Amino acid sequence: MQKCKVTFIPDKVSVEVNKGETLLAAAIEAGIYINSSCGGDGVCGRCKVIIREGTVQSQPTEKISHSEKQAQYVLACLSNVSEDVVVEIPPESRIGQEHLGVYVQIEETTSKDSGVSDEVFSHAPLMTKLFVKLPAPDHADRISDLERLYRELRKSRSMPILWTGLANMRRLGKLLRSSNWELTVTLGKRDETTEVVLIEPSDTSKKNFGFAFDIGTTTLVGQLIDLTTGKVLCSKITYNKQATFGADIISRIIYAQAEDGLETLHEAVANGINMIIKECVNEHGLTLNDITCCVCAGNTTMMHLLLRIDPTFIRREPYVPTVNFVHELRAAEAGIQINPRGLLACVSGVSSYVGGDIVAGVLASGMNTGDDLSLLIDIGTNGEIVLGNKDWLVCAAASAGPAFEGSGVICGMRAVKGAIQRVEISPKDYSVKYETIEDAPARGICGSGYIDILAEMLKKGVIDKSGKFNVDARTDRLREGEWGKEFVLVFASDNKPNKKKHEKGSDFDIVITEADIENLKRAKGAIFAAASLLIRHMGLDFSDLKNVFIAGGFGTSLNIEKSVMIGLLPDLAREKFRFIGNGSLNGARHVLLSDQAYESSQEIARKMTYVELSIDPRYMDEYMAGLFFPHTELDRFPSVKFG
Amino acid sequence: MQKCKVTFIPDKVSVEVNKGETLLAAAIEAGIYINSSCGGDGVCGRCKVIIREGTVQSQPTEKISHSEKQAQYVLACLSNVSEDVVVEIPPESRIGQEHLGVYVQIEETTSKDSGVSDEVFSHAPLMTKLFVKLPAPDHADRISDLERLYRELRKSRSMPILWTGLANMRRLGKLLRSSNWELTVTLGKRDETTEVVLIEPSDTSKKNFGFAFDIGTTTLVGQLIDLTTGKVLCSKITYNKQATFGADIISRIIYAQAEDGLETLHEAVANGINMIIKECVNEHGLTLNDITCCVCAGNTTMMHLLLRIDPTFIRREPYVPTVNFVHELRAAEAGIQINPRGLLACVSGVSSYVGGDIVAGVLASGMNTGDDLSLLIDIGTNGEIVLGNKDWLVCAAASAGPAFEGSGVICGMRAVKGAIQRVEISPKDYSVKYETIEDAPARGICGSGYIDILAEMLKKGVIDKSGKFNVDARTDRLREGEWGKEFVLVFASDNKPNKKKHEKGSDFDIVITEADIENLKRAKGAIFAAASLLIRHMGLDFSDLKNVFIAGGFGTSLNIEKSVMIGLLPDLAREKFRFIGNGSLNGARHVLLSDQAYESSQEIARKMTYVELSIDPRYMDEYMAGLFFPHTELDRFPSVKFG
Repeated sequence: MQKCKVTFIPDKVSVEVNKGETLLAAAIEAGIYINSSCGGDGVCGRCKVIIREGTVQSQPTEKISHSEKQAQYVLACLSNVSEDVVVEIPPESRIGQEHLGVYVQIEETTSKDSGVSDEVFSHAPLMTKLFVKLPAPDHADRISDLERLYRELRKSRSMPILWTGLANMRRLGKLLRSSNWELTVTLGKRDETTEVVLIEPSDTSKKNFGFAFDIGTTTLVGQLIDLTTGKVLCSKITYNKQATFGADIISRIIYAQAEDGLETLHEAVANGINMIIKECVNEHGLTLNDITCCVCAGNTTMMHLLLRIDPTFIRREPYVPTVNFVHELRAAEAGIQINPRGLLACVSGVSSYVGGDIVAGVLASGMNTGDDLSLLIDIGTNGEIVLGNKDWLVCAAASAGPAFEGSGVICGMRAVKGAIQRVEISPKDYSVKYETIEDAPARGICGSGYIDILAEMLKKGVIDKSGKFNVDARTDRLREGEWGKEFVLVFASDNKPNKKKHEKGSDFDIVITEADIENLKRAKGAIFAAASLLIRHMGLDFSDLKNVFIAGGFGTSLNIEKSVMIGLLPDLAREKFRFIGNGSLNGARHVLLSDQAYESSQEIARKMTYVELSIDPRYMDEYMAGLFFPHTELDRFPSVKFG
Repeated sequence: MQKCKVTFIPDKVSVEVNKGETLLAAAIEAGIYINSSCGGDGVCGRCKVIIREGTVQSQPTEKISHSEKQAQYVLACLSNVSEDVVVEIPPESRIGQEHLGVYVQIEETTSKDSGVSDEVFSHAPLMTKLFVKLPAPDHADRISDLERLYRELRKSRSMPILWTGLANMRRLGKLLRSSNWELTVTLGKRDETTEVVLIEPSDTSKKNFGFAFDIGTTTLVGQLIDLTTGKVLCSKITYNKQATFGADIISRIIYAQAEDGLETLHEAVANGINMIIKECVNEHGLTLNDITCCVCAGNTTMMHLLLRIDPTFIRREPYVPTVNFVHELRAAEAGIQINPRGLLACVSGVSSYVGGDIVAGVLASGMNTGDDLSLLIDIGTNGEIVLGNKDWLVCAAASAGPAFEGSGVICGMRAVKGAIQRVEISPKDYSVKYETIEDAPARGICGSGYIDILAEMLKKGVIDKSGKFNVDARTDRLREGEWGKEFVLVFASDNKPNKKKHEKGSDFDIVITEADIENLKRAKGAIFAAASLLIRHMGLDFSDLKNVFIAGGFGTSLNIEKSVMIGLLPDLAREKFRFIGNGSLNGARHVLLSDQAYESSQEIARKMTYVELSIDPRYMDEYMAGLFFPHTELDRFPSVKFG
């Protein structure tokens, strides 16, 4: 088989592949992750790359515009290597460090205003280090080394079932005697038992760290936490590299059924987790051995893939997952690289389409603790809705799509540096002022940016209530583009690089298309319909709600006013709304830090009832009624006035 | 380095070793186990081999008699290879299949007369297989596969903490659906939790087998048991191949401290266990996968070596073992080859010198269940004594030495085929009639044989009460031999081979020497002194005893009358004595078959108090008084009359 060399820039990474291999496969081989929502079927058009030297055999596709074609753009998944080539991966196609915020330090969303603060739960982390001094044995006290240790440990707390692995038994005798009977013991919770996970000589009880993770379909977010103090040391976000194999959970499940598919998806998510761990650990001068545990929250499919459990049956009638409750495991069993004996706990899920991420969100909101009726809306690739209080909880899922996560929209991106998050359109000449995260050159639009843009365009009459462009608006920003009608937010020529910081924006005009608006409208419509129907299902009304918690990867803030304006959120008194940020991550952190929170999460998962909205005949009516800004039934949004 | 070829016969196994290597090392390399009580120091004289071709460089030793030297006998440990040689291993030097009963099928000692019968304990084995039919999920019942399984299992019994390994979770989804929701689940006890150890499609609930093992310092005995019925399918015995590295636990512990010593000893015992398992499994047409668990009972040092836990501290002041209570492990972790997920349970021990074998013996005797005061005497390399009833238990250890196990005596052997077990000496001409096990040509003398011989020699005046030969006895059987005064039981010339069965006896005269008698006297003296002192220690007298249980590897029987006659056992009404055979093995089997017995064994281990007799100043007096047949204080043996 003839080999060809493929060199990727700006990475300067080369791989040799068989002639005929696709560029997408070559990139994966090279460890470079390219956007590919459809899993390489040529459908999503997100894996655009530029051929800088040599030529490739590309299949024709409508996803490449005429101007892109002239600029040597091809779809990586439809291009076969036939000779040595040099390929540039433009920022917008890359899932990677350079552009889209792999390992981007994110702001902590642990402020007391947003959901339950860490202090609410008693501090009793998943792993505890205890320094103990054992009495040396003598003729009057000759119980074995292991019983001696257990006896001492039981003095400090009740541990009915205490056990340890053979590896520790093998080390114990010498360790005790060489450390003068002083040692540090790491205790881990395993179901209702306590494991002596680690034994170390002398006092290392202050070196005890853990990670909380939100395993999202689109992104992974991790937090390094000092388990002794409960302090968050840093938070990082990266794309879930599984995105290369499909944008949503259904395409991932399909991919998992291919040969080595499950293994590939498992490795992709484990690698992402491990890279976040490594970055955080290095930054804080720690070693992997100092990390004794991690807690992951994610949707049911993500958790199956993380544990390398076949997710096939999640999408087969009657949609039953293999596991919802998983007891604690060695993290290494799931491919997570921390201390080799370190533990992994997964926040329990409810059903195939309501996972541990939502349970964690409920925990983080505290809605399960009071008498007040609360609604939780988690805006992710799947939109999940929870309704209830301390006595009961029901939940539903809405297939919102990833638009609010910056995926499936032409210029979408995560809420990281360079993302447009706020715009102002002049009513006079439709000129645009915008703000980006960290004031960097504009690279794309994040979820909260899209909400802002929609509201602003409605207000200024750029679009009408059905989401169509106002063709009377006289501005060259409104034009017929490659993908139909579009409004230009940033002209590439105006998007100046920041040379000092070596920051560069998108090479292309940043636009929002009518198709994007349609996508966003469907997303908000699906979420609103699910919330509305779930409330009706329980014989209630929006007005019965005392609190509405909003969770989602919008960064640190969400503009409630504008979210109501576009009909994403119900039109209620604004003080009822609380944005709790990444509920999944915050809930996972609570579980990591508190036995009480852990038990509470299990109780939430047991208690919560899943309601299958798609089989409710009213769902389609609700959904269709929501495909309007803010809504077909305007009396449901009395406070919303445009113009 | 020059290589020499060493060929061992009758095995016909050759190995290449470096010039200068000892024959003992070469034999180990070849996988042939030679007796070597001293661990290769040239002290014990048990590793005699015959040079058939070539010559070796042998250091001078008194352990080889003149006649042996002429017959080309050398000590394997003191002979260095300098050229290609052919070496014969005579039956008496071999620890191996051919001669000394590796994998010898032994008779079951499970009769109801001897100790507690299996039926006493409720049948609830360590591993249970359950065939379950799960209701298939539908829209009204969508709990996850794993919860569905747990829910069904909990219908049949209370299992508060139920868990399984990731490997099973990974298989579960496909397995349930391909087997039409019918599967067999193997449940294992792990501390106070229940593990779903195995999941298999369809109904395999009747294929559930386990092993009970007595891990002795000198021998390993294993029983294959059908866990469904509780039936013993076969029992096999082999030498503990660790014997090559030292005869007693002290020399093993010293050997374990050498480089790779612990590993070597661990492998030796694990290999022995594995070979018994393999033989039994093959014989019954099973596979290793059908063996779901095993229970081992052994002294504390043996259990440390089996688990590859450093035993160093057992023999260091204040004699503290690293573990006495070990929770259930995967058998594979201890190198035991059964089902890869199969479990190993170890019967808990009490102290460094009273191990799980004695706890198992107490369990098998039932002495811990009644009001009656009982004594248990376990006659092994270590003699252990237990005294008590259902309210209290005390125990002590006596360093008896392995004489009654057929070791440390010139013609000693285990109670297997060809062992002399009964003799009759003519009072007229001192001629000898003898019986061997299975009527085979005589190969040596087993423990019960020695008891019989001593009693018979006392009765017929061949020896006096101090154990010295009666020099007036006119017979050519009484003579000065290589090792001092000896009495010939079997002349080699009279020891005819059985040609039909291809059986051959010892090449040499089978004798008992004055030194042997001295060894046996010390052994019985130590055991009697320990029993006597332990009873005095508790302010009691032998006459307070209602039962005396005797355990030990004497095969299926022990002659109580003759044991009392030589002063091994106290002179009590004979109906008080009950020989329970291998108490360690029987106790291990009870634990394997019954949760109730398992709990009882733990309670025995917790309850039993170890009394260190060696620090009692009266011990030496007791011991010295017992160095006489039957005893110095003849009024303690009123029923014993000689001649």
